[in-house]
Amino acid sequence: MKDHLVIFDTTLRDGEQSPGAAMSKEEKLRVARQLERMKVDVIEAGFAAASPGDFEAVRGIAETIRESTVCSLARTGFDDIDRAGEAIKPAARGRIHTFIATSPIHMEKKLRMSPDQVVEAAVAAVKRALTHTEDVEFSAEDAGRSDIDFLCRIFGAVIQAGARTINVPDTVGYSVPEQWGARIRTLIERVPGADKVIWSTHCHNDLGMAVANSLAAVVAGARQVECTMNGLGERAGNASLEEIVMAVRTRSDHFPVQTRIDATQIVPASKLVSQITGYPVQPNKAIVGANAFAHESGIHQDGVLKHRETYEIMRAEDVGWARNKLVLGKLSGRNAFKTRLAELGIVLESEERINQAFARFKELADKKQEIFDEDLHALVSDDAVPPEHERYKLAYLRVCSEIGETPKATLTLIQDGIEQKAEATGSGPVDATFKAIETVAQSQTELLLYSVNAITTGTDAQGEVTVRLARGGRVVNGNGADTDIIIASAKAYLNALNRLHLPEERINPQGGV
Amino acid sequence: MKDHLVIFDTTLRDGEQSPGAAMSKEEKLRVARQLERMKVDVIEAGFAAASPGDFEAVRGIAETIRESTVCSLARTGFDDIDRAGEAIKPAARGRIHTFIATSPIHMEKKLRMSPDQVVEAAVAAVKRALTHTEDVEFSAEDAGRSDIDFLCRIFGAVIQAGARTINVPDTVGYSVPEQWGARIRTLIERVPGADKVIWSTHCHNDLGMAVANSLAAVVAGARQVECTMNGLGERAGNASLEEIVMAVRTRSDHFPVQTRIDATQIVPASKLVSQITGYPVQPNKAIVGANAFAHESGIHQDGVLKHRETYEIMRAEDVGWARNKLVLGKLSGRNAFKTRLAELGIVLESEERINQAFARFKELADKKQEIFDEDLHALVSDDAVPPEHERYKLAYLRVCSEIGETPKATLTLIQDGIEQKAEATGSGPVDATFKAIETVAQSQTELLLYSVNAITTGTDAQGEVTVRLARGGRVVNGNGADTDIIIASAKAYLNALNRLHLPEERINPQGGV
Repeated sequence: MKDHLVIFDTTLRDGEQSPGAAMSKEEKLRVARQLERMKVDVIEAGFAAASPGDFEAVRGIAETIRESTVCSLARTGFDDIDRAGEAIKPAARGRIHTFIATSPIHMEKKLRMSPDQVVEAAVAAVKRALTHTEDVEFSAEDAGRSDIDFLCRIFGAVIQAGARTINVPDTVGYSVPEQWGARIRTLIERVPGADKVIWSTHCHNDLGMAVANSLAAVVAGARQVECTMNGLGERAGNASLEEIVMAVRTRSDHFPVQTRIDATQIVPASKLVSQITGYPVQPNKAIVGANAFAHESGIHQDGVLKHRETYEIMRAEDVGWARNKLVLGKLSGRNAFKTRLAELGIVLESEERINQAFARFKELADKKQEIFDEDLHALVSDDAVPPEHERYKLAYLRVCSEIGETPKATLTLIQDGIEQKAEATGSGPVDATFKAIETVAQSQTELLLYSVNAITTGTDAQGEVTVRLARGGRVVNGNGADTDIIIASAKAYLNALNRLHLPEERINPQGGV
Repeated sequence: MKDHLVIFDTTLRDGEQSPGAAMSKEEKLRVARQLERMKVDVIEAGFAAASPGDFEAVRGIAETIRESTVCSLARTGFDDIDRAGEAIKPAARGRIHTFIATSPIHMEKKLRMSPDQVVEAAVAAVKRALTHTEDVEFSAEDAGRSDIDFLCRIFGAVIQAGARTINVPDTVGYSVPEQWGARIRTLIERVPGADKVIWSTHCHNDLGMAVANSLAAVVAGARQVECTMNGLGERAGNASLEEIVMAVRTRSDHFPVQTRIDATQIVPASKLVSQITGYPVQPNKAIVGANAFAHESGIHQDGVLKHRETYEIMRAEDVGWARNKLVLGKLSGRNAFKTRLAELGIVLESEERINQAFARFKELADKKQEIFDEDLHALVSDDAVPPEHERYKLAYLRVCSEIGETPKATLTLIQDGIEQKAEATGSGPVDATFKAIETVAQSQTELLLYSVNAITTGTDAQGEVTVRLARGGRVVNGNGADTDIIIASAKAYLNALNRLHLPEERINPQGGV
């Protein structure tokens, strides 16, 4: 019997730290439900003390999820710990994950604390966390550049204080597998009480080795890997959940562990996270990229035909690649619509919201013959800004593309309930539309990113547009989907502006694990 | 003094095997010039025997590139070897890279050859290649699943026959670093004559470990890594050149080697390859992703401000990230335009083509204030289909987006010199435009992919659209750039149709290394 490898997903916490990837509470709930369906062991739902919004999201997930452990990050301060404890209270199984930096450079330059003070703070934090839950995890931030003797000392101390999981993060993505494995092995050998806890690793991908480092840690004895869908995360991101899970499974001859992940939920989870965050997955991404299972070259195709296993080490269907399932069409009724939403884990809280979503569904079905799961996700994403914060709404838009003519957009916005008409010219229809919106909004924002993804295939596919705006250090993503790419662009821009008007989501800094 | 690590770039050969990533000769030349500027040691320019087009591309690169070795792939048949030899003949330094499968499953199911026959074919191929160049590389396809004794035997034989470089590919991306390193170490220890050759590795990324596997091979003694820009390649692609180079450089304490790569050329090379192939780079891609050097979280930002090295292990400027350089504007003349093209390695062969490109530049400068390097690349990409194969040209297009109205596209194409008018409605302006084009073209193609990238930032940025079409097993990408996204879409669709009318590019199967 193989050891169980705990899959700790931090898409909702570390993944969300990607620029502009902030999610609403409802979006986080949708992702959490999908992670639960995929049988993730631990869902790190957020950093409760970061803001009231983060607190509400963690608490909402703790109230909803029954099968996975729900975890909140917390610094070592008691205020942080108590907020985390309160947020996870409704969970079937709740965890507090507390952390402090342990590398000389971080202790000296960032914390301005002595090593003794750091150990003291860590022990106190673990003890405080134990008053909320028996499941406490401790992380040594920047462990990759920390002194090994000091790591042994602090880990020994927090184990004695009652921590159950010890996480060793490579915060700056600096490590190489053989060194990282050796470091984990040394820790497990030297730390007093090491056999009483689960060792965990959390690797960043700055040099492209997050997955290999994580797996080297597993071979060395780690039994939890912290990872994200699509490798989402700050900078080059975290270890990819899908790569970790499929490497362990495909190379079961090599890795002494197994996960309980339902791999057929991987591709749906990948698409959902990409759609909600506006972060595309490149075609040549392992497991979840559009080409991951496609063969171009003649030799390979020939090989595949002659004998499947000559080139395939995994099967596309094992990780949930399948033809988009046709779920609904023009004639589908409200009940079929509601049932499919429920199957997808989408819960709309009031009858009114279901009715609004159903009306949008009918509108879409008029324009598009086949409605896929991805379309339904996009449909409810339109709804992610609560109506009370929906400052701008698009009532009318007309803009033409004509060779030789300068595009002019004419539009009507509802701003705080009042109709505003506007027009502007631009270098293209999208430019003209954004400029027309700005004649009303005057938002003083900078456009950082404009991207379009086709949600499904086919010429009548919906385009989903992501617009990233920045103002005064705050970055938001807005999404909009429509069969008309220009209208989708307008919706995405307005969605971003509406999100800028939401209460500032984070008043405190984020976690640095 | 550290050992030199040979960087062997196969973007133009293995990278090009990505579905739809086929490049024209001129596009390949532009990439090759950028690889030379980046100081890549070996450029694998193609597979000369695959088709007349491949042959011409390899030969064109061999004629042009002076600083890098130019290499052609070849199977072991003498026809392949001789075509490769002829193609690389004009090179300052030319290499033939011959390969044959060595795993039991491949020898039995694909080659239907006995191990003895395989050894014999390999030795004969190397000897034949030596009649063309003294620089011969041999690869054992699917070495990762080959019997180690048989590998020792075949490698010993080809070394004795005169091969200079022995490449060990993990063709199906199945390996893990410690095993892969051990395999390379064993080979170097056991193969007779191992000390006389350069050992090389070529890893695929199906389980997300191509870079770690390659670097484990380096630690074990390999002194050449085969890799591609952006990790492009079939399925999940190859080891990323940028990650290999920066890992070796950033962790010079660990790796006993150095490269001669000019890292400041990495980001321009990444953008060029992405633009030409239509393969986007995800934001959380290491080194070359848009976020690779961006920090979102408050803690990290605070850390960065307090002391840069707390979170940064590389500097963005070291790999060529810089503000887009404003190069040209409305008032720039033909000479400034021509000079900048030359600086970018873009060579237009006739005065007429320069004049056409300059006319397009002036048009663009009317619509867009600042013209960046990326805009110039897009401008000349428009030109990638030779005029004699340009079956369709867009003369006029008008289509409107209006809420509540069904979009109708009206357009005029020039088909083989004759004006064709068309119109169609669709679920959006892009759909209407494609349908209108199809009323004329009747191409019977399937739309596999539609993607949009903003080439530069700013609201007046050009959109570059990639359209991937399939017909009867053939897949082509078409690109189109314009400040108007709808016009860019029409151009991309027509570009794809024009490419479908190019002579079939590959009559023979591609290489399986």
